[in-house]
Order: sequence, then structure tokens, then C-alpha cells
Amino acid sequence: MTHTPRAIADLPTPCALLDEPRMTRNISRLAQQAEDIGVTLRPHLKTCKSLDVAQRLLTGGTGPAMVSTLAEAEVFADAGVTDTTYGVGIALNKLDRVLALLRRGCRLTVLVDNAPQARAVAEASRMAGIPIPALIEIDSDGHRSGLSPHDPALIEIGRLLEEGGAELAGVLTHAGESYGAVGQAAQARFACAERDAAVQAAKRLREVGLPCPVVSVGSTPTAHAATDLSGVTELRAGVYVFFDLVMAGIGACAVEDLALSVLTSVIGAQKDKGWLMVDAGWMALSRDRGTAAQAVDQGYGLVCDVEGNVLPDLIVAQCSQEHGTIAARPGSGAQVPYLAPGTLLRILPNHACATAAQHGGYHVLDGEGDVTGYWARFGGW
Amino acid sequence: MTHTPRAIADLPTPCALLDEPRMTRNISRLAQQAEDIGVTLRPHLKTCKSLDVAQRLLTGGTGPAMVSTLAEAEVFADAGVTDTTYGVGIALNKLDRVLALLRRGCRLTVLVDNAPQARAVAEASRMAGIPIPALIEIDSDGHRSGLSPHDPALIEIGRLLEEGGAELAGVLTHAGESYGAVGQAAQARFACAERDAAVQAAKRLREVGLPCPVVSVGSTPTAHAATDLSGVTELRAGVYVFFDLVMAGIGACAVEDLALSVLTSVIGAQKDKGWLMVDAGWMALSRDRGTAAQAVDQGYGLVCDVEGNVLPDLIVAQCSQEHGTIAARPGSGAQVPYLAPGTLLRILPNHACATAAQHGGYHVLDGEGDVTGYWARFGGW
Repeated sequence: MTHTPRAIADLPTPCALLDEPRMTRNISRLAQQAEDIGVTLRPHLKTCKSLDVAQRLLTGGTGPAMVSTLAEAEVFADAGVTDTTYGVGIALNKLDRVLALLRRGCRLTVLVDNAPQARAVAEASRMAGIPIPALIEIDSDGHRSGLSPHDPALIEIGRLLEEGGAELAGVLTHAGESYGAVGQAAQARFACAERDAAVQAAKRLREVGLPCPVVSVGSTPTAHAATDLSGVTELRAGVYVFFDLVMAGIGACAVEDLALSVLTSVIGAQKDKGWLMVDAGWMALSRDRGTAAQAVDQGYGLVCDVEGNVLPDLIVAQCSQEHGTIAARPGSGAQVPYLAPGTLLRILPNHACATAAQHGGYHVLDGEGDVTGYWARFGGW
Repeated sequence: MTHTPRAIADLPTPCALLDEPRMTRNISRLAQQAEDIGVTLRPHLKTCKSLDVAQRLLTGGTGPAMVSTLAEAEVFADAGVTDTTYGVGIALNKLDRVLALLRRGCRLTVLVDNAPQARAVAEASRMAGIPIPALIEIDSDGHRSGLSPHDPALIEIGRLLEEGGAELAGVLTHAGESYGAVGQAAQARFACAERDAAVQAAKRLREVGLPCPVVSVGSTPTAHAATDLSGVTELRAGVYVFFDLVMAGIGACAVEDLALSVLTSVIGAQKDKGWLMVDAGWMALSRDRGTAAQAVDQGYGLVCDVEGNVLPDLIVAQCSQEHGTIAARPGSGAQVPYLAPGTLLRILPNHACATAAQHGGYHVLDGEGDVTGYWARFGGW
């Protein structure tokens, strides 16, 4: 990408479009919420994987930040992000890379939720003479990893870390189940559950004399819905930077907040079936069907005209690798208009993290729909 | 990737593993089938997107080849592949790149299935003084794009191309519905339907004096099941190079034929739930749930030990971006063994095209399970 086209019509298809004013509003909204609640915000960079976006997300461009891979930690460390938490329980074969990041001055904090892992982190710390900062992951909703705040192993793991040579940095929880909680009241209940689990675990650690400086909670739905985070020191969220149809489907945002879309060209039609064929398949949209279980199933994405106006009830109903089939949402009674080959459309994604990951970068749009730049993404582990 | 580790245990996780002997067997099997049937094989490069794999797939390394993006056509043209068909109806904004490929000596053939598209291809050909080779796409199973072989527009489109300045290269069909056909007999019926539709369309074009040198059919299931392709000139298939659980689920291959897997590390367990947590989520496995509608639902993938032996009925039941949750297949009664953090496992994918696309390259294994190289992939459009 050596030059920047000035109009959407000059872009190749399919490609990822990023509406910068919407992104800026999304960033500001949660920054304000964190300030109002009185906690530090630690944005997750797994959605964007872009230095340009990270600069706009992070205070002073340097952190605090959350990452989902060590590759992210390394790339962002190169760009000056020096306070990073890696949000996946640490695999033992990654400890050398963790130590390398710590040696170069990036404070990388890892997650631990079991004793063998804690022992390995402590041993690596002792061998290197570098206490690896580690948070104990707490399970607040039965979704995935983590210990119950009442688990006897919590204290054992805390001691293994702190007395074994690592640095017990605190506790962290993430209510992944909140992605299924519809409406602010339901999301606020998950926010309370996150808070209560993390604060309870912190209390237990402190009661036995262990340190617990960090009490970290968050997910996009709970971060926006939380009203009282007493005892919590930091709030995390990720997908809010772009938002997506899954988040709109549970009321965490409006469809008009979605900053990411995929530009596509009409390549044909099957008129008798009410289909338009476009050149965005699952390679451009991802295979994510996150709205399949929601009240309104958006297929592989909701269709907009080239200016971003939603075409009501038109969805990408089927995908092949590089073909998308646009059809009316079943039961909607909507009619698919005939659009000539060459017509440009935009598809709003179910899941911004998954769709963004299919692209090498973002073509950035200003408020007028002009293309102002290209922001590269990276991937890998 | 500057050096090649010698043992799987030295690889980072997650990463893509490619069993070269299995791949070689898969390539040889279909090459033999095409020879037996007496048609030219045109392998699809959309699954591998790798020069190293393409070299092994293509006769003399130069083609014929099928691609799913112009980026593939361009990268493979740089490597000497000079006979390429682009298998997605041509978007009008891509015609400049098509002409550029033709100018540099790559015979790139495009697909057309409607009159406005045919007019645009003809006009671009006339303007450039270069007849763009175009195949008319025929719909043999109602799956996606293409014209019925009986559609009156077939002749109109043929004339628009041939008389308008393009080159009418023939007809092409792909029975995408064959991916749901279980067993060789059902797949063979789709192979007959592909053949009959393409041959019928070719006959109609020839009857009005239009040329139709190419009669192209194929998909992985039909290519392997076909027994009589009279009238067909070429056979296409893609995913067979690696095969996957979707193909195994319909009997197009055995699980032991799967050449692609994802290496992952155990990072924890939820013993009371019977879960193992691993560091391969949907970013490494893809969101593809292609086996969800099959008789045996493989979740996000079937679990093997590090040597590739299937652990019966253990599947990746849930995925987050970088977390996989391994559980017993519902109803199987299987027990998930406790495996210590650091244990390596391999995940067989639902859909090789989708899983491979999540990775920057393949760590290549020999028949002994040693790592012999790294073959880069590319993406983009």
C-alpha cells in the first residue's frame, strides 16, 4: 500500500474499512466511564492489532494495555508500550519470551490458574533472577479458565508464586458469559459478579499476608454497564473500540456505533432466488456466526450501502471462501433489490475481532466517507 | 523463522503442522484418478496459498492451476505459474489487474455468469486490445453462482464475450452441494450432475457456432467419486491436498489422510467440568464449524496426542480468541484425562482452507514426526 486512494470507489474489494470518528467516539465513551467510576482502564489490543489504533486507545500511547498473544506484547513493546498484561494462561514454552520482554524493560504480567503453572513461573523467575509478575485468574461465571474465589488452591498458588521467586501481582477475572447477557441490567449483574469474585479472592490472599495490588475485571459488556467497582483497581475491555453486531445484539452499543465494515463488490445475482452475489466470503468476513443464537440472526453480516446506511433485513446469508450470498433475513419479507455488478456494498461484521483478523490492515474513513489512510495490522503468535 | 527446529517440542504454540507424507499421498491419489479418467487435473491453490505446496501440486510447477483471489494469481505468476483460472465471478474493479497479468504472459481465465459482467469483460478486452479469456459459470446444483445450462442468457453471454472482443474459453461448474453428500455413491451422483450440466451448456454454445474448448468440473468430493467424465476436459479440486474433518465426515477421505493439524499446549484444566484448556482458540483453529451439521460433530476440531494419534471423542468444544476448551464429545461417555500444563496436543481441523488461513506458514513434518522445514503462506486479495 504505497499511496492512499481518496475515494472508497478506488479501493480494492474485499477490504476492511474503519470509520475513525465512530472509533474515536467508542474510545472516548469507555474512557469517560472508567473515569466516572474511578478505575484505571486497560484496553485490550487483540481486536485492533494495529499500532495506529493502539496509539489512540492507550494513554500516552504507552499503556496500560492487554494483549492476547506474546507477538502482540513484542510488537507493542517495540513501539513503546511498557505495561502489558497477557490475557491467556501462560504456556510453559512461552516463559523464555516472557523473560526476554521483562529484560528489555517491558513489564509483562502473565496469568496463572493452577499449581504446576505457578511452580514453573516461579522456577523460571528464580533461574533468571527476574521475578515474573503474575496475576491469578479467577473464574466469576464458569465460562472458561480460572479458579473459584473460594478454591483452597488460590492460597497455595499465591504462595507458590510469591515465595517461589515470582511476583504475585494480584487477581484478574473476565466474565465471558456476559456476551450472552441482553440489556444493561443483565450486564450490570455480570459486572457485580466480576467485582465480587475478584474482590473476594483479593481479600483471601491479603488475609494470609499475601500481596494483591491489582484487582482486575472486565469485558466489553460489563465495563460499560458497571456502576460500582469498589475494591477493583482496573477495568479491561477490547472489542468496544470497533464494536460489532454481537455487541449491538445484546444492547451494549447501537448498530450506528460499529466502526468496522468490509467493502465488497456485487459480482452477480440469482434473481429467482432473491440473491445477490458479492466478492466477500468467509475469508473477508470470517466464519464467526456470533449472532446465530441471538434474537436477530445477522447471518455472516448486515448489509449497508457504500455510504454505510443499513439496508434493512439484508444479510450475508451464506459464505464460501470468496463468495458471499446476500439474501433477505428469513421471515422479514424484505425484497433484495437487483444491484448491477460493480455496485459497492459494506458488510457490518458479527465479531470485529474475528473479521479484522482476516485483513492485513484498515482503510481509514473520515466522517465524510473519504479514505484518509491505511493502518496496517499484524498477526501470528 | 530463520532456523528450523528439529523436534516438534521446540515449536512455538499454537502453530500449523503439515504432514508431508500424507500430503504427498493425497496429491498422488487424485493425480492417479485424473489420469485413470482421462482428464487434465487443475488443482486449486486456495487451500495452501504456498509456493512450496504449489510446486508439489502442479505439473512441472507451472500449472494448470485454480486460484480464489487475484493476489494468488499474482504471487503464483511471479513463481512461474502461467495457466491460472480465477474461480470467483470477476468483479469489474479487478479487470485492470487481470489485464496486467495477461500482459506479463500469465494466461489468466476469469468467470462470468451475467450479461453486464460479460459486457464489461468484452469492453475491457477491446479497450486494451487483449482478449480476456472467460469461462461461463454454470450452476449444476443451486448452490451459489452460475447459470442453468438451459438458461437463454447462456447464448447471449457467450456472444457478448466472443463477439465483443473477449475470448470465450468455455464453461465451468462446481457442485458445492457435494460437500453435504455422504458416501461415494451420493458424491458420484453430484459428479454426474456436474458433468451433465457442463456438457449440456457446452453443447448449446457449440450448436450456435460459439467455441467451447474448456468444459471444467469439480470439487474434492466429486473429483474423487467420478467414474465417467465423457465430454469434460478438466477436473478441479482443492482441499484434497490437506483434507479435513468435513471431508472425512462425508467419507471423501479417512481421518488418517488429514495432513494439516494445529499444535497446541495445555495451559490448565477445569477438572470438575472435565475440561482441558489449551492455547489454540479460534484464531489458530478458525471459527469454521463445518462438522456441526454432520452425523459426528467435531466441535472446533478433533484432539490428537503430539504424535498425531487421535484421542477418541476428545474435541475442542469451545473457543475464545486464544483459548480452546477440550471436552468429551457430548454423549460419548469419554473421559478427559488430566494432562499437565505444558503437554503438547494436535488438533485436526474441520476445514483445512479456513484453518490454514489463520497461519503464516506450515511447519513441515516428515514421516517420523520430525520438523524438516517451514513453508510460508500468504493471504490478502
